[in-house]
Amino acid sequence: MPYESDLALSLSPYVAGEQPKGQTFIKLNTNENPYPPSPRVAEALSRLADSLRLYPDTDATRLREAIAKVNGIGPDMVFCGNGSDEVLAFAFAAFFAGKRLLAPDVTYSFYPVYSQLFGVEYETVPLREDFTVDTEGLMQGAPVALANPNAPTGIMLPIPEIRRLAEHCRDHGAVLLVDEAYAAFAPENALPLLAEFDNLLIVRTFSKSHALAGMRVGYALGQPALIDALRRVRDSFNSYPTDRLAQAAAEAAVLDTAYTDEAVRRVVAARDKCRAALLAAGIEVLPSATNFLFVRAGKEDAAPVQQALRNEGILVRHFTAPRLKPWLRVTVGTEEDMEKVTEALIRLITTERGSI
Amino acid sequence: MPYESDLALSLSPYVAGEQPKGQTFIKLNTNENPYPPSPRVAEALSRLADSLRLYPDTDATRLREAIAKVNGIGPDMVFCGNGSDEVLAFAFAAFFAGKRLLAPDVTYSFYPVYSQLFGVEYETVPLREDFTVDTEGLMQGAPVALANPNAPTGIMLPIPEIRRLAEHCRDHGAVLLVDEAYAAFAPENALPLLAEFDNLLIVRTFSKSHALAGMRVGYALGQPALIDALRRVRDSFNSYPTDRLAQAAAEAAVLDTAYTDEAVRRVVAARDKCRAALLAAGIEVLPSATNFLFVRAGKEDAAPVQQALRNEGILVRHFTAPRLKPWLRVTVGTEEDMEKVTEALIRLITTERGSI
Repeated sequence: MPYESDLALSLSPYVAGEQPKGQTFIKLNTNENPYPPSPRVAEALSRLADSLRLYPDTDATRLREAIAKVNGIGPDMVFCGNGSDEVLAFAFAAFFAGKRLLAPDVTYSFYPVYSQLFGVEYETVPLREDFTVDTEGLMQGAPVALANPNAPTGIMLPIPEIRRLAEHCRDHGAVLLVDEAYAAFAPENALPLLAEFDNLLIVRTFSKSHALAGMRVGYALGQPALIDALRRVRDSFNSYPTDRLAQAAAEAAVLDTAYTDEAVRRVVAARDKCRAALLAAGIEVLPSATNFLFVRAGKEDAAPVQQALRNEGILVRHFTAPRLKPWLRVTVGTEEDMEKVTEALIRLITTERGSI
Repeated sequence: MPYESDLALSLSPYVAGEQPKGQTFIKLNTNENPYPPSPRVAEALSRLADSLRLYPDTDATRLREAIAKVNGIGPDMVFCGNGSDEVLAFAFAAFFAGKRLLAPDVTYSFYPVYSQLFGVEYETVPLREDFTVDTEGLMQGAPVALANPNAPTGIMLPIPEIRRLAEHCRDHGAVLLVDEAYAAFAPENALPLLAEFDNLLIVRTFSKSHALAGMRVGYALGQPALIDALRRVRDSFNSYPTDRLAQAAAEAAVLDTAYTDEAVRRVVAARDKCRAALLAAGIEVLPSATNFLFVRAGKEDAAPVQQALRNEGILVRHFTAPRLKPWLRVTVGTEEDMEKVTEALIRLITTERGSI
């Protein structure tokens, strides 16, 4: 008899983007922020070492209050976890375990993995030809999870479409989970719908817009009953998932809105400039409302261009699913990084085309 | 239809010890360390703020190497997580999901909660009259989880008994999980058994001995196949459970063995002095190999003494399970804290007795 449980043997774990050791790369493969977090983060950290002997506040009260304030809602509508990955895992256990769940076929590839872990019947609905989400197709009377803007396409589903989905789900007693990991780089988000829909759960992260990928803080926004359900699952898994430094760092970062707005503005400007240059060179790039671009880099397979970029010291992400195979996901870095990668992409994709 | 899953509705979450806000207490209710972490922790943290924009190393390589070095084993025998609570949760999913699991009836009260979350058939075996673990009773051909030293009794099961259990479990294809959260305060631990038993998983924490409760780092030690199973579950839940600062802080703390040894020595000395004084006053105190004492503070219910201590600004932990109700769990604090609590316990328990 194997020592492992049948559950453990049945899992097909998520594979994260490479975190290279040794060699220095222009690292545009995991959608991190090219700028450091707010200087207030370092200040907050330096004060806290001695307090680490004590357990953190389970409910991350001060952080939740700060998030609530910035978003103009009550702290009882905020839940914090150890990265949005953990918040998503708790949400899958709290709302989808044992149920059928619908999601677009192209989306964050962790969703089917959580589904295996918590016994969710995960079913996908194909994106339309133009890579947009098929809202109608997702209306089947079951709960829905989707990333908006979507990953790795970068495309934003307009908020009126999210509203239609939320309404449909509510009418069928089902939760709509909107994963807004990238919404800070988009022109709008689902926040205004929260007051109206008791079945809407928005999940966000400090990893991208607030440059705290290394700190692991994510949060969910929703009506208090949904937040309570997340808390029940958390207290069945780990009483203190966000540590003292993470709470303090995220609080400092979320309150420094001027700093974040400026970092986001620079990323958005560099993104739009790179996309315009690639389009002008005749390269397909999907419209992006995120901190990355989805770039067509091959007729059938973008792997050769990914490898050529790597040889030049530039890391980008490639997915092997059939529809995604010709594309590369390029995180938006600094202005300087983007000049280099834009030039390299145009040169390599043009050469690749010539060789076919 | 409720939005929550049947799983979420069925959970009875773990209740952690109180983390008081506002008023200043002598806080001896959650087994934290009375001394701050190694000064090297603050140094490590101050260097890292800008690197937080990047995701951490999923596998916590440097931290695992440091833990391996200090324990004289290979890094492939070490797994790190976001507190030992998370490591335990992963272990329950990896080795016990869908199986029958045996544990002493008095032990860490999170075990039955993980069991609910991951569909484990949790069955308890009563402690003997003297609160020691019934090794024979746990030998039923099923996997076993136990805390050693045990909580909240503080009593240590001798290592030869652990060996017998490990052997029995191995002969039945079952994992033995030994939760050594408090082993740093004990005269011995199960580490020497690791080379011999491919079914032995030891789980430890930085929260107590290394004064990093606020940082959330725990780890498991075991043969590489067990470590791989934990990694599979982790990668189905959260790719990066330990953040950059946690990895750096724990690495600095684990390598500063001189500092930790001295902090542990002081706690052990204060513990033994307090126990001797209570025994001399005719109060029952179980023998402790941990950083807490389990003190009989009532004929049937220790709640009045707990409340009286609280009124004097001293927090200790009380459990309401029938066998535990007459007892209080008192974390060992500084020498000064312990003088106060020893005096208060003797005075209050003697008075309480007089009033019955």
